[in-house]
Amino acid sequence: MSLDYLLADLQKRLSYQFKEKKLLTQALTHRSAQGAHNERLEFLGDSILGFVIAAKLYHLFPEANEGQMTRLRAKLVKEKSLAELANELQLGELLKLGSGELKSGGFRRASILSDAFEAILGAIYLDGGLASSEQVIHHLYHSRYQSLSLSMAEKDPKTRLQEWLQSRKKELPDYQVFKTDGQDHNKIYWVRCSLQQPESKDKQMTEANGSSRRKAEQSAAKKMLEILGV
Amino acid sequence: MSLDYLLADLQKRLSYQFKEKKLLTQALTHRSAQGAHNERLEFLGDSILGFVIAAKLYHLFPEANEGQMTRLRAKLVKEKSLAELANELQLGELLKLGSGELKSGGFRRASILSDAFEAILGAIYLDGGLASSEQVIHHLYHSRYQSLSLSMAEKDPKTRLQEWLQSRKKELPDYQVFKTDGQDHNKIYWVRCSLQQPESKDKQMTEANGSSRRKAEQSAAKKMLEILGV
Repeated sequence: MSLDYLLADLQKRLSYQFKEKKLLTQALTHRSAQGAHNERLEFLGDSILGFVIAAKLYHLFPEANEGQMTRLRAKLVKEKSLAELANELQLGELLKLGSGELKSGGFRRASILSDAFEAILGAIYLDGGLASSEQVIHHLYHSRYQSLSLSMAEKDPKTRLQEWLQSRKKELPDYQVFKTDGQDHNKIYWVRCSLQQPESKDKQMTEANGSSRRKAEQSAAKKMLEILGV
Repeated sequence: MSLDYLLADLQKRLSYQFKEKKLLTQALTHRSAQGAHNERLEFLGDSILGFVIAAKLYHLFPEANEGQMTRLRAKLVKEKSLAELANELQLGELLKLGSGELKSGGFRRASILSDAFEAILGAIYLDGGLASSEQVIHHLYHSRYQSLSLSMAEKDPKTRLQEWLQSRKKELPDYQVFKTDGQDHNKIYWVRCSLQQPESKDKQMTEANGSSRRKAEQSAAKKMLEILGV
């Protein structure tokens, strides 16, 4: 398939037609490649996305407080979510990468994909104004908006555990990795969460595993919250 | 002076007339006070400001890279800068605060002032659309844009020193507070920056002071960069 055909197809998926095709090409060019690259467009797109999603959440959740909106937005614009959107748009096959990045599979890397996604939003803004980038964002996020709920804006278990303990003036939990399984790219982390019991040497403990230290800690904190009946 | 008069005056300074005065009142209401407060508006205003300043910098500095634009924006939207803008607008006298915040001088606190400033931008967006908030932001930042230069986007001395040392695979600097002068609210910090010399026990050292530990460290790092001829 020709590049022109692929770019036309991408614009259909975006439901946006570029007047200046050069901008789209630049948005797809990683700084490792020759020519005008997408870093400045990414800076622009990142700020557009932050604003457009903030305004949307403000209207979608009239009862949400600032913290809840901040957490919902973080879910929608985190690197992993943007890389998913980039994959839905099949950006990977259209990225222009330097030879080093090409060999190491840069077209699959979440950071490169999410940067290109933001750069496309920046390019649409320059090409068609804010209204166009708003339309594209709402189009791409349509199903994600529908599955959002305020309960997703809850704080994560580690934060909740910490705040619960602090409000009771208790000591903070200790997290320790006590085991790892598997190979480098497929590691499982085992974490123990322990709480010092006041006026005794006993400890309350929970254990959990996960594909990252962070995930394992969150699971262990969640179990601890259950034990404590929070 | 009546409140109505003061609010009319504020709108002149903003060069924006609210259609819905309620929104302006809400933007000036801290969460410690009774009634609809400004936290949600602040969330909105923060994202608007981030986007409007990003787009402005993109056009003002066509040669700037992403890192430089990020640092310039950080200068323009940091709490201290927003509190300055809030003071130029004389927001302090118009803030609605709960009695606790009132007594402790909350109307002078940078965080409360900068939050109210952002909330006003959010309120203008809801009242008059993005174009209105853009106009107000550009009006208020006019002289600040003019005094911006790419040289202000340089990394701070500590970061530059660290990166210079890392690129030469040298040990990182050590910063120590070795003296403090003055009383609690007027302290001067004295900091020593030292570099281990490879293959000797000598150390290169610089000393500097500042009104915070951070400032003193930055000055000491700056002196070290001068010694090293960076």
